[in-house]
Amino acid sequence: MSEDIILLAHGSGGTLMHRLIENNIVPLIKEGGNFEFDDAAELLVPNQRIALTTDSYVVKPPFFNGGNIGKLAVSGTVNDLAMKGAVPIALSLALIIEEGLKLSELEAILKSIAETAKEAGIRIVTGDTKVVEKGSADKIFINTSGVGYIPDGRNVSGSNARPGDVVILSGTIGDHGIAIMSEREGLGLTIPVESDATPLNHLVERIFESIPADAIHVLRDPTRGGLATTLNEIAQQSNVVIRIEEERVPVKDEVKGACEILGYDPLYLANEGKLVLIVKEEFADEALKVMKSTEKGKDAAIIGNVEEVESKPAVFVKTVLGTSRFLTMLSGEQFPRIC
Amino acid sequence: MSEDIILLAHGSGGTLMHRLIENNIVPLIKEGGNFEFDDAAELLVPNQRIALTTDSYVVKPPFFNGGNIGKLAVSGTVNDLAMKGAVPIALSLALIIEEGLKLSELEAILKSIAETAKEAGIRIVTGDTKVVEKGSADKIFINTSGVGYIPDGRNVSGSNARPGDVVILSGTIGDHGIAIMSEREGLGLTIPVESDATPLNHLVERIFESIPADAIHVLRDPTRGGLATTLNEIAQQSNVVIRIEEERVPVKDEVKGACEILGYDPLYLANEGKLVLIVKEEFADEALKVMKSTEKGKDAAIIGNVEEVESKPAVFVKTVLGTSRFLTMLSGEQFPRIC
Repeated sequence: MSEDIILLAHGSGGTLMHRLIENNIVPLIKEGGNFEFDDAAELLVPNQRIALTTDSYVVKPPFFNGGNIGKLAVSGTVNDLAMKGAVPIALSLALIIEEGLKLSELEAILKSIAETAKEAGIRIVTGDTKVVEKGSADKIFINTSGVGYIPDGRNVSGSNARPGDVVILSGTIGDHGIAIMSEREGLGLTIPVESDATPLNHLVERIFESIPADAIHVLRDPTRGGLATTLNEIAQQSNVVIRIEEERVPVKDEVKGACEILGYDPLYLANEGKLVLIVKEEFADEALKVMKSTEKGKDAAIIGNVEEVESKPAVFVKTVLGTSRFLTMLSGEQFPRIC
Repeated sequence: MSEDIILLAHGSGGTLMHRLIENNIVPLIKEGGNFEFDDAAELLVPNQRIALTTDSYVVKPPFFNGGNIGKLAVSGTVNDLAMKGAVPIALSLALIIEEGLKLSELEAILKSIAETAKEAGIRIVTGDTKVVEKGSADKIFINTSGVGYIPDGRNVSGSNARPGDVVILSGTIGDHGIAIMSEREGLGLTIPVESDATPLNHLVERIFESIPADAIHVLRDPTRGGLATTLNEIAQQSNVVIRIEEERVPVKDEVKGACEILGYDPLYLANEGKLVLIVKEEFADEALKVMKSTEKGKDAAIIGNVEEVESKPAVFVKTVLGTSRFLTMLSGEQFPRIC
């Protein structure tokens, strides 16, 4: 029986599955310590406040410029914890593999998972492996769920934006969306765009170290639906108006170029390594300074502010032409399977 | 745009997805309290020891006699927590939906999820929804990850079986495996077999209430690979020999009949509502009595015992003919996509 591709029997629960997990999966993802083979993993949490998050990743294709589905899965879930002000502790890893996947591809993905988890300082403690028949999935789908603890004093939520607050974006937008689309559609971009997928928890900790925790009102990563959708979610959750200035929003020239050719608006493109910080005005400059001093926040910029709601929650963008327009949530579907 | 089937746009992150989640998903699964729409959910845990588990469900077909993929997903994850001695607290729910799924099917699955979570006393606190193109998945895949807390004094693991311990099985085996196979293959069984999918956490708590926690060495639910595979996992983790008697293992007549016709061995069939308890000998009778007094443990039986390892960890079964043979782990693949 060939060991170089994944077979249905690898998902049976029997000896082949045990061999795959013990020989090919666990050695690549375990980071120090032992990996228990019980039905659940035990963790010790340093605070009673914990955060739980989950995301499934179905990105197509699974390998792209700047990463793969594994890097994305760890980054995305770590970031969801960090956006709650949580310090990541542990990650679960559940694989749904299409029969016929090359073992070398699986291993490349697992290596990225291990590297990204190491960078974020999170441990993979439990997992699950399912195999489905060829044609019943698309190479590989990954679910990562994350647990973190929330230090006392932190209270970050999409519902905490307050009038007067300042909106800071940690860097350029649209990189992930364009990287996936150009991979998928074979766009021969003159300057290839790399996905920005990366864990942001250390950047978040730097912000918490530098300004009072109660000044940090909202953290949110603008993934599917892009910055426009994220800001709309926050406006609705907090019942406020958010105004941003288009020319303050950092966008790489190559992303701008690709958007012009393809007719996309960077404000709606997915990002996997950027965050929106909504902060008390008096601490905005300090937060910006700290963010800009880091590699992952070097292009950070103040892009707007929060105002009292008038008739209803909304987001406005002041265009480069000086006019102001509603910025709506993404409607319909722009990019399927971006993450 | 039709609202009766799931479209790719429902996975975009935009307005359609928000509408699906707010109108069709959350109302069906929220149990009291508010459902936050942040990237992660905050929980308060009553003990520093927590358990984390994850499982993806790809069962084919998603609806079967005795349940559906939703009931299975909640039961399976709750049970994985309970098998660690953990009291379930919170569940995440991640859906991968194939474009074209009927909304009515999704809602039926979500209702089962809500009912099963209510029965288990676990709250669904966070989720994720992805939609993939027709042909890129098989109707619906569900990942549930669970968090529970482990009360002090409990130390349950597959590696804790000790020579002299007694092996108790909570009820009949093979029901889930036969239910799925007969659904899938259209076997016209004279007496239809129902899946046993159900949460076992209350049964586990009854056991912990009745005998000392340190007498409870192993809890494990024999799912994929069946009882034979589970006992082999325990024997290996604990470095012991396990001996069971075939005639003591409860099997329903209709399951026996189906197995005879189809050539299956019930010891390798999947279960989703049964557990193996390995317990200190002096407390075995009390544990059995308590289990038998419950609906979910009414067919419980002592099926064997644990012995010192001789040359290597192994499982032996004394057959109904009085002979003794090695009981190996499932090898190869018996039933794909049983859970």
